[in-house]
Amino acid sequence: MQRSLDPAKVAQKYLDEVRNGLESLTETLSVVGFVTSDDLPSLTYANATQQKFTDVGIAYELRRIARLDLEDAIIEVNENSDIHGLFVYLPVFNNEQDVILRNLVDYRKDIEGGGQYWTRKLYDNDRFAAADDQTKKALLPCTPLAIIKMLTEAGVYLANTELPVSDRIVTIFNRSEVVGRPLAAMLSNDGARVFSFDINGPLEFNDGKPAEIDITRHHALAQSDIVITGVPSENFQKVSAAEIKKDAACLNFSFYSNFEEDISTRTGIFIPRIGPLTVAMCMRNTLRLYKNFHQSQTRDHSR
Amino acid sequence: MQRSLDPAKVAQKYLDEVRNGLESLTETLSVVGFVTSDDLPSLTYANATQQKFTDVGIAYELRRIARLDLEDAIIEVNENSDIHGLFVYLPVFNNEQDVILRNLVDYRKDIEGGGQYWTRKLYDNDRFAAADDQTKKALLPCTPLAIIKMLTEAGVYLANTELPVSDRIVTIFNRSEVVGRPLAAMLSNDGARVFSFDINGPLEFNDGKPAEIDITRHHALAQSDIVITGVPSENFQKVSAAEIKKDAACLNFSFYSNFEEDISTRTGIFIPRIGPLTVAMCMRNTLRLYKNFHQSQTRDHSR
Repeated sequence: MQRSLDPAKVAQKYLDEVRNGLESLTETLSVVGFVTSDDLPSLTYANATQQKFTDVGIAYELRRIARLDLEDAIIEVNENSDIHGLFVYLPVFNNEQDVILRNLVDYRKDIEGGGQYWTRKLYDNDRFAAADDQTKKALLPCTPLAIIKMLTEAGVYLANTELPVSDRIVTIFNRSEVVGRPLAAMLSNDGARVFSFDINGPLEFNDGKPAEIDITRHHALAQSDIVITGVPSENFQKVSAAEIKKDAACLNFSFYSNFEEDISTRTGIFIPRIGPLTVAMCMRNTLRLYKNFHQSQTRDHSR
Repeated sequence: MQRSLDPAKVAQKYLDEVRNGLESLTETLSVVGFVTSDDLPSLTYANATQQKFTDVGIAYELRRIARLDLEDAIIEVNENSDIHGLFVYLPVFNNEQDVILRNLVDYRKDIEGGGQYWTRKLYDNDRFAAADDQTKKALLPCTPLAIIKMLTEAGVYLANTELPVSDRIVTIFNRSEVVGRPLAAMLSNDGARVFSFDINGPLEFNDGKPAEIDITRHHALAQSDIVITGVPSENFQKVSAAEIKKDAACLNFSFYSNFEEDISTRTGIFIPRIGPLTVAMCMRNTLRLYKNFHQSQTRDHSR
């Protein structure tokens, strides 16, 4: 029997958690979002994000800005101690400059957790925010984290166990530096064997580390307990029911649907989108960054 | 009358300079180069680099390594105080992960000067290596620096003047984060108006800053005193004699020839390649990094 899961409901649980966390603070958290695109989908998404942050009680200022002013603007926010978090709506240049932008965000304000400071910690399986203080937890990138939370809710990721996806086989279509690669590392750190596909071919992750492998999509899908897709293209050959293992958990995080409509005739659970949960994880990260880096700073100033 | 310029001869001048600089040191400089590719051109280039460093008197260890081991290997070299410089032969993954690799190199060992620490200084027109010490000069990325040195030799960049390319118009085909973009910033910081083209269209740089502009290749080329090409593709429509301003200086840094063979019928000077000069600039950077960061460290240890 195919079950379904409403990401908005799951998100609500985490929004409530963040709201509770905010109540114990003496200061209102302040976040700036930069949007440079003039296309309607980005702006609509940016406005929706702003609304969600505001609803939870975080001051979220959305700034529309020319793409060529963005680097200077990021640096300005980095240096402004009144702002606790920064969100940049990508893609902007659609080339390597977008990676530069992402890494220009100070890691103490990187609420998406997509910069190299945090992903490097993840690849080193380093769970702490700073080397000298083991009371502060590291950040995880928001989309992979949202995916883990959805899988937890679906019962296929056993949170609070030592190896939450022990002996599970996972196939992921996407190996971007902000989602697919960190997700593969996280799931394999947590016990899974992960086949990671992108246009350059497959890799296999075990214990957080990638290795070369010669495997077809067909062979990977047929044995996978979990299938995760995030291909930002209409030309991707959608995953169909006939390709997957019976009762597999299937999750899509691309704006495009990467599964055929028949997929739910064979899945254990099908999660067609994670949208609102990603934003909830961003807020969770905002609160964590504040507690790790900004709250103590304020205390220092008040001495 | 079309003149020509041998980059090997120009390189020799800088190699002699580096050799002299090394003679005053008590320690042999040590550099590691990582090459992951199995294709012959990369290996040939890597071996040639190693030979040139060795000839000048820098210990250069070339390590062949699996691409998936590269990140860990970079971190290991970063932490090894016996190694003063690190060179990574790119592309490795041919996607955004290559930007991550480049930025994983510790800036104090980044002899190519291509990481974000150094390019950010360039974009801020910050000429110093560290904020707290104005005796230490910042690094410049080696290929743009080699291009500037070639233009200097050609007499179209007037070194030791306040604005070395004042009132000159420049067109650059390439806006990569390691060459085209820093080069456009450098030349415009030095007085030029720069039209920068890539597949996403043109930008105009003045005083180090980019601005949106609506200009055709035809219009840009017709008024440019200097034309620089670095398009890594055979499909690029090569720049022909008919397109350029009479007596323009033309320089190609791509492995592909981006100029038509007739180009020298109309140029003031034509520089078809800068190859060996880039490596010379890497050595120059190696020496500068040693003096900035490693030499003083050694002194501290010996106290």
